[in-house]
Amino acid sequence: MNPNQTKNDAITRQEDDFAQWYTDVCKKAELMDYSSVKGFIVYLPYGYAIWEEIQNYCNKKFKEKGAQNVYLPLVIPQSLFATEKEHVEGFAPECLVATIGGGQQLADPLIIRPTSEILFSELYRKRVNSYRDLPMKYNQWCSVVRWEKTTRPFLRGSEFLWQEGHCLFETEEQARDDAMTMLEVYDSIGYDLLAVPFVKGQKTEHEKFAGAVATYSIEALMPDGKALQSGTTHYLGTGFAKAADIQFLGRSQKRETPHQTSWGVSTRLLGAVIMVHGDDNGLVLPPRVAPIQTVIIPIRGDKVPAVMEECERIQKELTALGVRAKIDDSDHTPGWKFAEWEMKGVPLRIEVGPRDLENGLISLSKRYNGEKLTVGLSAVHEIPEVLEKIQAEMLEKAKNYLKAHIREAHSWEELKAILDEGGYAKMMWHEDEELEMKVKEYTNGGTARCLPFNEEPFGDTCPLDGKPADRVVYFAKAY
Amino acid sequence: MNPNQTKNDAITRQEDDFAQWYTDVCKKAELMDYSSVKGFIVYLPYGYAIWEEIQNYCNKKFKEKGAQNVYLPLVIPQSLFATEKEHVEGFAPECLVATIGGGQQLADPLIIRPTSEILFSELYRKRVNSYRDLPMKYNQWCSVVRWEKTTRPFLRGSEFLWQEGHCLFETEEQARDDAMTMLEVYDSIGYDLLAVPFVKGQKTEHEKFAGAVATYSIEALMPDGKALQSGTTHYLGTGFAKAADIQFLGRSQKRETPHQTSWGVSTRLLGAVIMVHGDDNGLVLPPRVAPIQTVIIPIRGDKVPAVMEECERIQKELTALGVRAKIDDSDHTPGWKFAEWEMKGVPLRIEVGPRDLENGLISLSKRYNGEKLTVGLSAVHEIPEVLEKIQAEMLEKAKNYLKAHIREAHSWEELKAILDEGGYAKMMWHEDEELEMKVKEYTNGGTARCLPFNEEPFGDTCPLDGKPADRVVYFAKAY
Repeated sequence: MNPNQTKNDAITRQEDDFAQWYTDVCKKAELMDYSSVKGFIVYLPYGYAIWEEIQNYCNKKFKEKGAQNVYLPLVIPQSLFATEKEHVEGFAPECLVATIGGGQQLADPLIIRPTSEILFSELYRKRVNSYRDLPMKYNQWCSVVRWEKTTRPFLRGSEFLWQEGHCLFETEEQARDDAMTMLEVYDSIGYDLLAVPFVKGQKTEHEKFAGAVATYSIEALMPDGKALQSGTTHYLGTGFAKAADIQFLGRSQKRETPHQTSWGVSTRLLGAVIMVHGDDNGLVLPPRVAPIQTVIIPIRGDKVPAVMEECERIQKELTALGVRAKIDDSDHTPGWKFAEWEMKGVPLRIEVGPRDLENGLISLSKRYNGEKLTVGLSAVHEIPEVLEKIQAEMLEKAKNYLKAHIREAHSWEELKAILDEGGYAKMMWHEDEELEMKVKEYTNGGTARCLPFNEEPFGDTCPLDGKPADRVVYFAKAY
Repeated sequence: MNPNQTKNDAITRQEDDFAQWYTDVCKKAELMDYSSVKGFIVYLPYGYAIWEEIQNYCNKKFKEKGAQNVYLPLVIPQSLFATEKEHVEGFAPECLVATIGGGQQLADPLIIRPTSEILFSELYRKRVNSYRDLPMKYNQWCSVVRWEKTTRPFLRGSEFLWQEGHCLFETEEQARDDAMTMLEVYDSIGYDLLAVPFVKGQKTEHEKFAGAVATYSIEALMPDGKALQSGTTHYLGTGFAKAADIQFLGRSQKRETPHQTSWGVSTRLLGAVIMVHGDDNGLVLPPRVAPIQTVIIPIRGDKVPAVMEECERIQKELTALGVRAKIDDSDHTPGWKFAEWEMKGVPLRIEVGPRDLENGLISLSKRYNGEKLTVGLSAVHEIPEVLEKIQAEMLEKAKNYLKAHIREAHSWEELKAILDEGGYAKMMWHEDEELEMKVKEYTNGGTARCLPFNEEPFGDTCPLDGKPADRVVYFAKAY
């Protein structure tokens, strides 16, 4: 008998309906709930705790790179928002606008921030005087609002949580370096924390951020073959600085315009973790990001005091070792508990039962591959190592999946076939916005995800129009 | 010569204009900046870092009390907001309302949250089924918007940062306990972290939160004699739960309505720290909440390599001891640096100069009382202790000030005189909203701050109208 029976029924199988599976997991693992406003979700404790782990990791890394946390206003006056032309054209259609304050019509309506380039530029104008003030690297954790028609938990919402870094530099080189450095930091979130490998690269002109000179992104690959843009960094050039009239006294005593960057990751990263690792029994969390790393299940703990004592001893030992461990002493059956914590993706389960205990044994069960071990009680001190091994194996598995789903396309037909099957079509490329739109139509939604770094050209012409091509591009369908 | 000369000029003296002194310190110590929207401020790195210290302290305490962090939507549909009558009447006049989303007029306008009782109630209705689900204790860190006509940095803003805890309990007793428990937690922020002593008590009917059965508060006393409400907890009864139709299956298998609490502290706490400890040279921070606890100033460090080496050695030793230490190796003069870090309120300054160094000596200077010591290099390892002593002395000083400014009032005239001089007027009292309004008019703004706990009655009649009185009240003018 499968002890997961009851719980499994609660989750649609991936192969039956992947989108429904995803929504089921988000809801049933209690990561989020819907609110009474369409597209605005509630981050429940279990989901929010994962976000807090990501925040802790990022805050440490950002600080190492010299960024400082700040908080800027929630609203941008409409008149101010209009100052950077491409930017406003990009964002205006999805703005939420406040028009009434304290019972009065506002003369200048207030846009709820969809992103804060404009506000940071306003701030920098006041704070930067000399090259000695540069670089200035500020970061903000907040929510932003973008009015969306179709929304999905963590992936696309009318409100989402993110961080936005905004930096100012003396030279173009420094700013371009920063955009690349922060992309590396974002990449490390995947490697160090989420066990999610990313493809890194530059966005095409067609796909770049509204107002940027260059946009870079990390892209994760989901098991349904679709890419998920998981973080972006932008070299903004001097456009926003000029629009906001930011100048500084340079080393040669002349007024100069600083170069700007911005960079952000959002709660989309939760979506990546859920999809990359999840299975038909629910969530599967990599240990480093799991709010509960080990769950301890007493078997007949209500009847046998020694069982509960041992569970408490183990929890204490694990806590001292820095492991986030929880005992489930609720009055549910062990089978129910197994299914519950499997659904919640806890990386490691420890079962403590009266019979095993007599022999000085406990059972370990790894969530990600179902492996079960019976070990001696003294093995508890090895659990941090076990968790690290799980983390490494989950990353390896995800890397293999990614590698297997990057395939060369040498014709329109191959491109379409790869995108239909799922994964990245790797192709020789030249900048051509019209061609990108043709691909989107022909492949029913395929977009240029990025021009990946460190990819050797494998030809010199574009297979789609025969024109000279010197860059490698990855196309995919995407969230 | 006073090395602070240049900097002092930047700050108005407290006795000349206390309000202007406050604004000067906020700006010149780079805690905040104004934005292009009236009443919406920018939290700069130095101010935000203090808030992060408060967040860290609270998150630990809240977790100990069983609260979990969540995040709820930024907006509340107007139709939903109207469900709790007293609540909506209290907040409607200060709401910011969004009426346009994605270019379309919204059928149901969205209120930018001024507080989230309504949204939490909506959420709880879906999540609570049985007494087994209770208590449910959620907390959220976010910003809220209340459209204000007159604003002051950290004290009153159209947007401010805060946390709001919202909890649901099986019984009235548990909920009332929670309101008191969390008030104790808030009180401990003052004792443990900010060196700010609070008066604790219950609000009068007239002053309580819109929609609450009982409101409790912590009130700090500012050097201008005005009280600053610094945190509140509310026992909400069953009003919100009934309005939102929250019910649970009780122990006796009957449907019951849960009892609710909410509690919050905000960036007002920064205002309290600034005013309680600050002086004419600027900010004075208690060590535990100071982003930089010790600043190390090299004297002639550019000329004498041994000085810089010693500074770096000291910083390393302090960091290893858990002290947040910074070397100022900028090219300003020592005098400029002294004034700069005094203005920023760094609790302890270490000067390392070539002559002292030859004798194995360094100079320490305590910000809060100006005390200077010359000590041997080996004293560096005692600095954590020195900082703790400063913390304790700053608290003691603030407690003495508070104690000296609580005085009994036995007549209308005494009440007015005490409030004009500044501080709390302590008086025998009975609930009477009209009398509170009369006091406000007669004293030009005095309000009942709270009915303090643990205060022995010192009479049995109200000195204002001669009616029977069984409670002690504190009146004061307030921010």
